[in-house]
Amino acid sequence: MQISIKLKRDEALRIKAEVADGRTLELNSAKEMGHAFTPMELFLFSLAGCTAMDVIWILERQRQKIEKFEVCAQGNRREDDPKYYEVIALEYKIRGDQIRKEAVERAIRLSQEKYCSVRAMIKDKVKISVTYRIITQGGEQTYSYLPSPRDH
Amino acid sequence: MQISIKLKRDEALRIKAEVADGRTLELNSAKEMGHAFTPMELFLFSLAGCTAMDVIWILERQRQKIEKFEVCAQGNRREDDPKYYEVIALEYKIRGDQIRKEAVERAIRLSQEKYCSVRAMIKDKVKISVTYRIITQGGEQTYSYLPSPRDH
Repeated sequence: MQISIKLKRDEALRIKAEVADGRTLELNSAKEMGHAFTPMELFLFSLAGCTAMDVIWILERQRQKIEKFEVCAQGNRREDDPKYYEVIALEYKIRGDQIRKEAVERAIRLSQEKYCSVRAMIKDKVKISVTYRIITQGGEQTYSYLPSPRDH
Repeated sequence: MQISIKLKRDEALRIKAEVADGRTLELNSAKEMGHAFTPMELFLFSLAGCTAMDVIWILERQRQKIEKFEVCAQGNRREDDPKYYEVIALEYKIRGDQIRKEAVERAIRLSQEKYCSVRAMIKDKVKISVTYRIITQGGEQTYSYLPSPRDH
């Protein structure tokens, strides 16, 4: 499967990105300006979005009833060039009274280790820490996800 | 420097992404729907946008007068899970009568090998081929960029 995009400079470091069918998005180096996004923000969107879709899909196949689903991602950039993310913290938040911890853990594992295309392209020097929070009427509980020993 | 984002599921696999100051973007697994983007499209935007900004910035510091600047990116996904990009073809297109090839080559090299934060996070198994096209009144010429031997 092939995906093509094109970026055109608009002015200064303001760039218009488009895909073949005409959908467009604005990028900018300075996040203050308008509704544009920086490349590094889009990188986190890409990673968080990819794994979010996996986890929702897997949980629904396991008949887990999700009332609310969120993923937060926080990246810490290096001080020196290239200023890539040294650490990315991913947290999945799932609300649902019948949600089983084991089902969530399994869905995250399948995404992180098998399905997530974006995750699979990221170098090991970018440390990705994963937690998940399950929210029920009885309260909420946060868990740390531990990668399988064979992973990376 | 820390960057935080949050993704909320809207419906099915439709997801709203937001950054701390309220800017939002829609993601979707199926690109047909509205103006949403897929995570894999955003990944290419992120990579192409990051290197585009480097190259523009470096060329302008070298007093190269850019009339038009574009970057095209084309990714080929694997057939099997995880369906990451096995190959990404990046092409920079620069129009300007006074543009020097050596300046462009150098700007691309500095971005690919030193400055581009997104590029620096991508595993070697993702083959990134780079070309650049310089367009002047006299016509246009396409060149292949060869990474330095020490690179990666």
